[in-house]
Amino acid sequence: MKNSTRGIVDPFIVMDVMEAARAAEASGRDIIHMEVGQPSTPAPDKARAALVDAMGGDALGYTVSLGLPALREGIASLYKDWYNLEIEPARVVVTPGSSGAFILAFTALFDAGEKVGLGEPGYPSYRQILKALNLTPVGIPTRADNRLQPVPSEIPGDLAGLITASPANPSGTMLDHAALEGLISTCHAQGTSFIADEIYHGLQYEGRAISALEVSDDIYVINSFSKYFSMTGWRVGWMIVPKDHVRLIERLAQNMFICPSHASQIAALGALDARDELDANLATYAANRQMMIEELPKIGFGNFAPPDGAFYIYADVSGLTDDSRALAAEILDKAGVAVTPGMDFDPVRGHQTLRFSYARSTDEIREGLTRLATFMATRSCDKR
Amino acid sequence: MKNSTRGIVDPFIVMDVMEAARAAEASGRDIIHMEVGQPSTPAPDKARAALVDAMGGDALGYTVSLGLPALREGIASLYKDWYNLEIEPARVVVTPGSSGAFILAFTALFDAGEKVGLGEPGYPSYRQILKALNLTPVGIPTRADNRLQPVPSEIPGDLAGLITASPANPSGTMLDHAALEGLISTCHAQGTSFIADEIYHGLQYEGRAISALEVSDDIYVINSFSKYFSMTGWRVGWMIVPKDHVRLIERLAQNMFICPSHASQIAALGALDARDELDANLATYAANRQMMIEELPKIGFGNFAPPDGAFYIYADVSGLTDDSRALAAEILDKAGVAVTPGMDFDPVRGHQTLRFSYARSTDEIREGLTRLATFMATRSCDKR
Repeated sequence: MKNSTRGIVDPFIVMDVMEAARAAEASGRDIIHMEVGQPSTPAPDKARAALVDAMGGDALGYTVSLGLPALREGIASLYKDWYNLEIEPARVVVTPGSSGAFILAFTALFDAGEKVGLGEPGYPSYRQILKALNLTPVGIPTRADNRLQPVPSEIPGDLAGLITASPANPSGTMLDHAALEGLISTCHAQGTSFIADEIYHGLQYEGRAISALEVSDDIYVINSFSKYFSMTGWRVGWMIVPKDHVRLIERLAQNMFICPSHASQIAALGALDARDELDANLATYAANRQMMIEELPKIGFGNFAPPDGAFYIYADVSGLTDDSRALAAEILDKAGVAVTPGMDFDPVRGHQTLRFSYARSTDEIREGLTRLATFMATRSCDKR
Repeated sequence: MKNSTRGIVDPFIVMDVMEAARAAEASGRDIIHMEVGQPSTPAPDKARAALVDAMGGDALGYTVSLGLPALREGIASLYKDWYNLEIEPARVVVTPGSSGAFILAFTALFDAGEKVGLGEPGYPSYRQILKALNLTPVGIPTRADNRLQPVPSEIPGDLAGLITASPANPSGTMLDHAALEGLISTCHAQGTSFIADEIYHGLQYEGRAISALEVSDDIYVINSFSKYFSMTGWRVGWMIVPKDHVRLIERLAQNMFICPSHASQIAALGALDARDELDANLATYAANRQMMIEELPKIGFGNFAPPDGAFYIYADVSGLTDDSRALAAEILDKAGVAVTPGMDFDPVRGHQTLRFSYARSTDEIREGLTRLATFMATRSCDKR
């Protein structure tokens, strides 16, 4: 059978790194994982307990497509708690991960052939999902002095949509209120739909993450239980959409997904009550981040914007290589540390960048930094 | 914000029926549910036990995109067991429900604007998902004397793809080996990709359901843990794809879904070992079906093809009404039985059909039939 043109999307290079790390471990080596994009912690105790309880008494059949009403209410409350915003639960759409939210948002907002902008570096799947939906991704190269976030003057006038991320993956940098206002007003003025990816909200270290909903209700905001709530594998995300888009999204969700996993929704509801456990995870990331910010420059990876949130540092390694993939392979081979080359995030400039994740335990991060230091010391000796 | 054209899909009429039934129950009425498309039984004991066990010791993060290797092997074994087929586990793709499988299959196979055929009556979401992906659904009106399944002479020559379902929803009729061979060879001869929806396999009462993989490997087969395995709300399905399509699908799945719910995959693995419990469910459906086939004609709903599988009877009610929606509303109101009008399944002729589900307990089905009999007896008196 012949395949479609749109179906041919790029692979995730990080997957190759993960496979190489797995193979190294299978051969008996000890590997430190700085390539991963997820917490090593499980879903909170209360999440798992809620599911065990529900499995005893409920058939857990389909839920309504927009999600369990109690979960929609709980998510709405989070906006009060985190941002002091009143969000109607009716505007909350529970989705199969933020992945499902992107599919719903892109099909609801854009027709085949339309252009959608995204800052580079950025989450690689934006580009690939857009392509699979017959849309045209338009990469916007961001600048280090803008902390790798797009600015209004860089937004093309012919975009049907713009996706932003704050805190961003891979850079961890955030958009403040003024920056969001600038981007949203530019988009509104030129008829560009605005989609804010807020999946790393809750994981911030310098000040509060600002929600795009603090600036406007006429946007889509996408979030998830994967990161702060430590539930990647459960595949539960959500969107907040304008009120007059709810019915449109509901019909699409009924047909495209029926509903998100009922079991995962129950667990997510439990996770909303597990703030103590989640804030302990956050304290670990904060300690890891502090160590990374202090140590990486001493080791020779000092060219990065300090990350406001998420659990990544995205370093410019142009002083070391023009082939980040080869450098990552060398680091894995010689130091036993898995890191991600930048090409996933920036197809143009990613051959000179690496992403370091600090999502694992503090002991692992400390050991990883020690290994990286030894590797770089040896490497600079070898070069002499 | 403006929405896209493709995003405007039809609502599920059955959702309105379910809402009306819920409202009737909230007002204190007792309603028999013959509208539902899912088992009333929970996931098997072994499925839930497997998950409880896993939650104790595993962080349940992302799985690889194609699914847990053990689950892919288990699904491959099912083909040996059910059809005596050797399917390589590498060809098995675990998906977020059969819904996720349709999205992956359609994007992998078809570019925007291409035509995809589907028999009518049929599962309504085929049409809506195609539309959301900027594809053109082509309804093929099927005939009662072909048991509401399409035949080769009815397949347009300009289709990029054809979707079949056996056992079908809403009719429950199956395609035998010769019928599948005829359709697949017609599609192959004219370059039409063939997609077989086998979600109701395992739920058959007259002879064995034939898999399209018994005819050809150069097709996509879609199935799920929702029906026979009684796990609708868990959202785990699968596809078997040609070997040279695996990498294509893997890249799409990495980007569009990351992975199906890890927790649900663990539960599905447990369900594969729960055949005793599942066959007891099947015995209930078989008893319900027998009662339906005997009683519906006496009541006045006798114009249907005997269903080979699934848990539905799709009756022609043209002798009673030209407005199946109004008839369904009348039945809900007067008899307290929720049934589904046919417009979801056949936009052209569905105003003269009703779907009766027999997925609930035998006691409920018996009570439903009693109420329907009383309703129809009273109705015919009123008409006199």
